[in-house]
Amino acid sequence: MHRPRRLPLLLILLGLLPAVARALLPPPRFPGPHARPRPRAGTGDGVGGGYEFETRYFRQRLDHFSFSGEEEFFQQRYLVGRAGAGGWAGPGGPIFFYCGNEGDIAWFAANSGLVWDAAPRFAALVVFAEHRYYGESMPFGSKDKAYNNSRSMAYLTAEQALADYAVLLTDLKRNLSSESSPVVLFGGSYGGMLAAWMRLKYPHIAVGALASSAPILQFEDIVPDTIFYDLVSNGFKRESLSCFQTIKDSWKELDEQGNGQDGLLKLSKTFHLCQTLNTTGALSDWLSSAYSYLAMVDYPMPSEFLMPLPANPIKEVCRNIDKQPEGSSILERIYAGVNIYYNYTGTVDCFDLDDDPHGMGGWDWQACTEMVMPMSSSEGLSMFLPDEFDYALYADDCVKNFGVRPRPRWISTEFGGHNISSVLEKFGSNIIFFNGLLDPWSGGGVLKNISESVVAIVAPLGTVLFL
Amino acid sequence: MHRPRRLPLLLILLGLLPAVARALLPPPRFPGPHARPRPRAGTGDGVGGGYEFETRYFRQRLDHFSFSGEEEFFQQRYLVGRAGAGGWAGPGGPIFFYCGNEGDIAWFAANSGLVWDAAPRFAALVVFAEHRYYGESMPFGSKDKAYNNSRSMAYLTAEQALADYAVLLTDLKRNLSSESSPVVLFGGSYGGMLAAWMRLKYPHIAVGALASSAPILQFEDIVPDTIFYDLVSNGFKRESLSCFQTIKDSWKELDEQGNGQDGLLKLSKTFHLCQTLNTTGALSDWLSSAYSYLAMVDYPMPSEFLMPLPANPIKEVCRNIDKQPEGSSILERIYAGVNIYYNYTGTVDCFDLDDDPHGMGGWDWQACTEMVMPMSSSEGLSMFLPDEFDYALYADDCVKNFGVRPRPRWISTEFGGHNISSVLEKFGSNIIFFNGLLDPWSGGGVLKNISESVVAIVAPLGTVLFL
Repeated sequence: MHRPRRLPLLLILLGLLPAVARALLPPPRFPGPHARPRPRAGTGDGVGGGYEFETRYFRQRLDHFSFSGEEEFFQQRYLVGRAGAGGWAGPGGPIFFYCGNEGDIAWFAANSGLVWDAAPRFAALVVFAEHRYYGESMPFGSKDKAYNNSRSMAYLTAEQALADYAVLLTDLKRNLSSESSPVVLFGGSYGGMLAAWMRLKYPHIAVGALASSAPILQFEDIVPDTIFYDLVSNGFKRESLSCFQTIKDSWKELDEQGNGQDGLLKLSKTFHLCQTLNTTGALSDWLSSAYSYLAMVDYPMPSEFLMPLPANPIKEVCRNIDKQPEGSSILERIYAGVNIYYNYTGTVDCFDLDDDPHGMGGWDWQACTEMVMPMSSSEGLSMFLPDEFDYALYADDCVKNFGVRPRPRWISTEFGGHNISSVLEKFGSNIIFFNGLLDPWSGGGVLKNISESVVAIVAPLGTVLFL
Repeated sequence: MHRPRRLPLLLILLGLLPAVARALLPPPRFPGPHARPRPRAGTGDGVGGGYEFETRYFRQRLDHFSFSGEEEFFQQRYLVGRAGAGGWAGPGGPIFFYCGNEGDIAWFAANSGLVWDAAPRFAALVVFAEHRYYGESMPFGSKDKAYNNSRSMAYLTAEQALADYAVLLTDLKRNLSSESSPVVLFGGSYGGMLAAWMRLKYPHIAVGALASSAPILQFEDIVPDTIFYDLVSNGFKRESLSCFQTIKDSWKELDEQGNGQDGLLKLSKTFHLCQTLNTTGALSDWLSSAYSYLAMVDYPMPSEFLMPLPANPIKEVCRNIDKQPEGSSILERIYAGVNIYYNYTGTVDCFDLDDDPHGMGGWDWQACTEMVMPMSSSEGLSMFLPDEFDYALYADDCVKNFGVRPRPRWISTEFGGHNISSVLEKFGSNIIFFNGLLDPWSGGGVLKNISESVVAIVAPLGTVLFL
């Protein structure tokens, strides 16, 4: 069995627990600030991405859905845009509300130009709310305490986060004497899922939602579990068939070289690793992660959203893979390729596959509780090693690492998903689903218009849209 | 200060905590099996009200909204109607699902003829699901353990109950290979609120709801907090102005006679109490409760839903009040009146105002957590003593008695309520709200058609409709 073990590798980039990573091949992660964010602008209080905001805190209830008599609260951070030239219309005027993702809200505020740019045209107030257990919005006073164990993490769920937003918005509107304000929700990726779900669950609080790159169907068997890696692979195949094939062939090479101490040493040198490998698993994961993230941020312009990258980074990666002199080995080509992702600035001396000391990331917890998004890699269309999603293994690893057993069917019970078109047609309204088809998450997105006011905007050559 | 203290009295009839009762004047309770239910037929396993069902149990999760790693489950009881002549249409056929209230589900099944009678016409499967913490559906193995303290009761909320129904229905449909079955929700009173809310929150699980006598607007200041007692009073005034006036005058009489031991002894005799009164509070509550319940069950035919009663019981009560020989005192008339309610069968020798040993009822907990339904009695239209809803007192009593502080705004945040017409028009569909205008709960109900498929059926001379 030469399936590469993907243990500690994802930790580097993703903060993913080894166990989850092993079961998941590769990251079932959204791009998030854990992924070495390099915001385009300072995210300090007051300014992000050139947009000005005030940082405020709201005393938020830890558990909205039960009443033990032992009331716990935490400070939820939220950012309120400073009125620009026109400013907010005032009481009754629109509120643009960004549903915070799994990360520091200042980072999302700095990378969501659409919200900021659109707001003045509607004289809208801009609010970015931080998701509980991320950024500064830590229950129990600190991240260490919040992430201490399964009991302290228990309240990190999408339902509780949505209730946070509902309570915050209700309070905010009351304090602004603006109960009649139309609220429009925004969100990208996981935040996009939250925006769509919030519009469905709290229609009395928000009149509409723009949900970008929101894979609300990436649960159970609603979409094929191979679609994510197939789409990543497509992104490479479309740039260069030989590049695609080189990557596809590389896993066997890696595996063969990884047999024995000499081979591992050689591999470590080829890939300029700071430490010598013990197994190839970490390296496989490191490579897989790069490909997946490249597909998510394959923008036509230079970006620094996850890493500093050139325009059309997949094209650049493939160009590097393909252009190596004849006689170059497959793995030398691969190294040249991923160097674009991990070292575009050329400042890295050696790569450390194990530099995330935290381990227990918030998304890992969410993936081990309700956000069970099955992913496999198929022999057919994928350039990744074939790998089936093994739920039993996944669940056992969650129990082992977090002391918690996932509920793989809960999300579709709570929010729907099966026959979503029919449900949204009959019930939903005022939701825009945006997806770029190069985005591997688009496989779990809503890609067709459902009704007059539940519409899909599809950018055939687009990828993850951060607002 | 002659405001009658309504402490232990409600306990008798309602299982209401003294504290809550004191703040609430009189019962913020729905008629429920705590109110000495006398089902029309045996509620034993298998037969209720002439309808046959199987009793089943579902392993239900105690806390749907957090993941502590310490998984608790309980056995939720549900009843499945035995196929009659036609039987269920089979996979894909309709499912009629009754959202259990705050009581033994067999009792509701026995008193919901509409559901049973309609089912064969649609070849529908009938399911009655018991609400957690009621009947046999006790977490922690027993009622004593479930009702032990605020920690054990923490999960008795409407949100958790709705999630129970969603999980149960999803599982049921899967097991019946009937995922495409249209589910229609039914419910009366609190169960009607649940049915309406469930249709709003889980449109992917149920296609429609019939919500009967569901006061979903009886929160905060959405409707005037005097409306409940005004409607009760109207019911009496409409039968007889002198009856209404006698009741209105009786509180002062009661208060005056209640001064001193002699008076209390005399009162105890007048009302045939088993024990001598210490104060008039319990007696006032006992009387108020009778009037409120009479308004809820003022059916034009004899009924045994709460108590064995004649047709048009308010008319009978007023007839008895009015027809007493000239020279009868006000309180003698009152006694003759309420005798219709408490002793229509004539079998009661003396009345025990304090015969509920439990005290801590499930609805009392709910009223002290999220179901804060403000009720006042105004000088103007009401025949009750003027009494303002004092939230601070209410909340303090909840803390004192249950160790829990209410969240009076949570229900409208979670389910909406303000501007409900606009929200339901834009978002809801397939909900029928039934209300009888004699029902005092109709004051908190939806009484107007909102859209083509969110409709109100109003019976001007109707009262609480149990389905």
